[in-house]
Amino acid sequence: MESSSNEFGSFLKDAGLIWGPSPEIYGGFAGFYTYGPLGKLLKNKVENSLRKTFNENEIREIEGPTILPDIVWEASGHLKTFNDKVIVCSKCKKKFRPDKLIEEHFDISADSFSNEKLLEFIKENKINCPDCKSKLNEDVSRQSLMIKTFAGGKEASLRPETATGTYLPFLRYYNYFRRKLPFGVFQIGKAYRNEISPRNNVLRGREFTQAEAQIFVDPKEKNNWEKFEEIKEQELPLWNWEEQKENKNVKKVKLKYALENKILKNKAYAWCIYLGYSQLKRMGFPEEKIRLRQHFPEERAFYADDAWDLEIKLENYGWLEVCGIHDRKDYDLKQHSKFSKIDLQVKNEEGEKFYPNILEIAFGVDRLTYSLISIFYEKKEEENGKTTFKIPYNLAPIDLAIFPLMKKPELIEITKKIKKSLEEDYIIEYDKTGSIGKRYLRAAIKGIPLAVTIDFDSIKNKDVTLRDRDSEKQVRIKIKELKKEIEKRLRENSY
Amino acid sequence: MESSSNEFGSFLKDAGLIWGPSPEIYGGFAGFYTYGPLGKLLKNKVENSLRKTFNENEIREIEGPTILPDIVWEASGHLKTFNDKVIVCSKCKKKFRPDKLIEEHFDISADSFSNEKLLEFIKENKINCPDCKSKLNEDVSRQSLMIKTFAGGKEASLRPETATGTYLPFLRYYNYFRRKLPFGVFQIGKAYRNEISPRNNVLRGREFTQAEAQIFVDPKEKNNWEKFEEIKEQELPLWNWEEQKENKNVKKVKLKYALENKILKNKAYAWCIYLGYSQLKRMGFPEEKIRLRQHFPEERAFYADDAWDLEIKLENYGWLEVCGIHDRKDYDLKQHSKFSKIDLQVKNEEGEKFYPNILEIAFGVDRLTYSLISIFYEKKEEENGKTTFKIPYNLAPIDLAIFPLMKKPELIEITKKIKKSLEEDYIIEYDKTGSIGKRYLRAAIKGIPLAVTIDFDSIKNKDVTLRDRDSEKQVRIKIKELKKEIEKRLRENSY
Repeated sequence: MESSSNEFGSFLKDAGLIWGPSPEIYGGFAGFYTYGPLGKLLKNKVENSLRKTFNENEIREIEGPTILPDIVWEASGHLKTFNDKVIVCSKCKKKFRPDKLIEEHFDISADSFSNEKLLEFIKENKINCPDCKSKLNEDVSRQSLMIKTFAGGKEASLRPETATGTYLPFLRYYNYFRRKLPFGVFQIGKAYRNEISPRNNVLRGREFTQAEAQIFVDPKEKNNWEKFEEIKEQELPLWNWEEQKENKNVKKVKLKYALENKILKNKAYAWCIYLGYSQLKRMGFPEEKIRLRQHFPEERAFYADDAWDLEIKLENYGWLEVCGIHDRKDYDLKQHSKFSKIDLQVKNEEGEKFYPNILEIAFGVDRLTYSLISIFYEKKEEENGKTTFKIPYNLAPIDLAIFPLMKKPELIEITKKIKKSLEEDYIIEYDKTGSIGKRYLRAAIKGIPLAVTIDFDSIKNKDVTLRDRDSEKQVRIKIKELKKEIEKRLRENSY
Repeated sequence: MESSSNEFGSFLKDAGLIWGPSPEIYGGFAGFYTYGPLGKLLKNKVENSLRKTFNENEIREIEGPTILPDIVWEASGHLKTFNDKVIVCSKCKKKFRPDKLIEEHFDISADSFSNEKLLEFIKENKINCPDCKSKLNEDVSRQSLMIKTFAGGKEASLRPETATGTYLPFLRYYNYFRRKLPFGVFQIGKAYRNEISPRNNVLRGREFTQAEAQIFVDPKEKNNWEKFEEIKEQELPLWNWEEQKENKNVKKVKLKYALENKILKNKAYAWCIYLGYSQLKRMGFPEEKIRLRQHFPEERAFYADDAWDLEIKLENYGWLEVCGIHDRKDYDLKQHSKFSKIDLQVKNEEGEKFYPNILEIAFGVDRLTYSLISIFYEKKEEENGKTTFKIPYNLAPIDLAIFPLMKKPELIEITKKIKKSLEEDYIIEYDKTGSIGKRYLRAAIKGIPLAVTIDFDSIKNKDVTLRDRDSEKQVRIKIKELKKEIEKRLRENSY
């Protein structure tokens, strides 16, 4: 259960999760945030979970520059077309995105609204400036989202997404993967957008982290996709654009049904959709809070053959896009062939040249991290129990707390020995101050799944007390069996 | 043993380690590189090894913005003083760093040379433009290294180091760590410098990754450092500036001797030095290729009380700085108090206010990654054996290769099952094409420590062949014992 927005904001700050806007001592720079010690450990777990999923599917990570010369952004189209609609407050002159203002008030997608429709909607529903509450100007213009810079004597831009940079070394990948399609690569890293009105903490920041996989396929082989066979019976909450238009509810359908009924266009793309969906389940997001929403034809990028968003429902926000899955066809490799004058086509077995198509699975890491906190944080008043961050055990920022009962040298010594034997595999919080009860409370707020207490019997009997965060049950366990037991419990309570 | 520079360059590219300058298809942007699939896996291992070391010492990770408003860089002094000396070629007008030109030709540190001394040295030793071989202008000027940008209506800069950004949330940390010094935090992330002449692949790039720990201490408690007791007998190759001046050799000295003889100023700082050194040993760098070089007094930043560099010897480069350890005193918190008008002092038990001092351990992640490749890559001509990337097992980019002997469905099925049972813990390369001999060769070039081959007996006897990269020995092992054996071998062959 989630709590009010203010309480949640305090939790983010006090628990060391997310601070900002940063730098706070200088008054803050809108859209820039800092992950505190607990938040960063959680974000690392999120990134590593994504890494695991991609690597298991032989999609390999690469890391390219975050700054690229403007010729790249000219080729990709970003310099010309990567901009957002802006509406200005008549009084305080602050800028806002008209579509987002609408979406914040109503559970609809205003992405594809024309300027006229936006203005009409805003007028009819009397949406005012969220800051000074005055009337908004009746005019919609556009502003580029690119953040420009200059280095080594060249005009350049910070990447607004990892994707474009990932496409450029295509020929290098092609050799690395021994000249055989399909193959996939991904990047996890920063991207930058000069957002018009950064909002909602890290959900719409100016600097953010993406985890984007790009799968290069022969367009003729999109229905020759071995891995589809293993998942075709899986049921997914697919909400296509016709159903959205008719205000129909989301219902679960089998992937093979989705394919037969042309809800999804081909097996390769359906597999990408499944990969994204199963990742959210793996991270422990409750099934009823996940849906897959297809873009309206007019909402899609002009080069996209199909586009679906994975969305998570947050109490304080509504449905939030955490992943976009796109069939980008041959747009990118064609454009970069044209602008770089390097042929990025490959040959099939018949000797025909073609541009590989690109299927993209693009996660927002900050959004996933924030969603996990939002969904699993359980605030309680003191009389009703204790506040716990009920994050799934496998994603807990800190795996294990370890407490010597008292600050006696002999207890400290054995505690440090046990810590040392476990720290190769786990992130451990060593806490020696305060009553054991207080230390359990502190561990619960940080979401630490397991706590080990070392007392005087530990020295004699070579055993310790192991306490479980959620059941609150304590067992006495031999030190030599501790590692195995911890491993077992952290895996059992994962998704 | 290292090979010639050209061969090494090809290895970096062909093995999927480091590509660039990026984007290659657009002719490359000097100082920007891409880690390919193998290189990125290796870089992740390096970062995770650093994370482990820091976390084990209760130094926690945070993640701040890479863009900060210019008020921050005014306070830190970067806007005014973060620049490098420049010398220009009289003919091609290219810019170079005079100190680096000297260091590339002679095994000395020219960091502290005056302009006159630089020009004199260049003239005497007839150092010319490395590109067009013409004479260099007899003039040394300065150029800022800051990369500027503009976002949200503010002048801002990309951070030239993670450190400054790490200091700003000091009060947040102070609360998180329950208002008790000492404590430490670290950042691993990108930093940007408009290098005058980017060189040597990722060793001096314009975009690079740092891993910098900052430890906040009470200046009065620098010699009250519990953890020093455990390490005081350790011997380190400490080369202080007097010895350098007198051209004495580096010799190993015990830390307690270094302290008694004032080679190191205090226990807390000595412990930081040890942490850096032991990290290099943990990563498997050979002892004889590591030294600790103290900065000359005139080489140190004006606020630094002491500064030592950890250096690694590379065949093709000479001694390379991979980590700097600095006592920054109260400079940073004082400056940011002054400019932000937020008091960053804390109180000791006697109620006296003071600025915590900062001890910094600053690793260059790209340099560590590159050094590991350079030191452990063993090129062999076909008649002399096989080319192997002899990276220590615990840092291997890919842990395990797994081969079905043939492409028969029954072999593929059991291979996939085994892969699935191991991929929770390991990065696995699944390779089903080519003769087993060829597959072993490919695995060796990638540095994969262990290879598992599944054959028809595997189905009958539930066992597989496990092959070791370095000993090249093969054993037959039961599938149910495989995981344990892999874990054991990967740990045994680590440092």
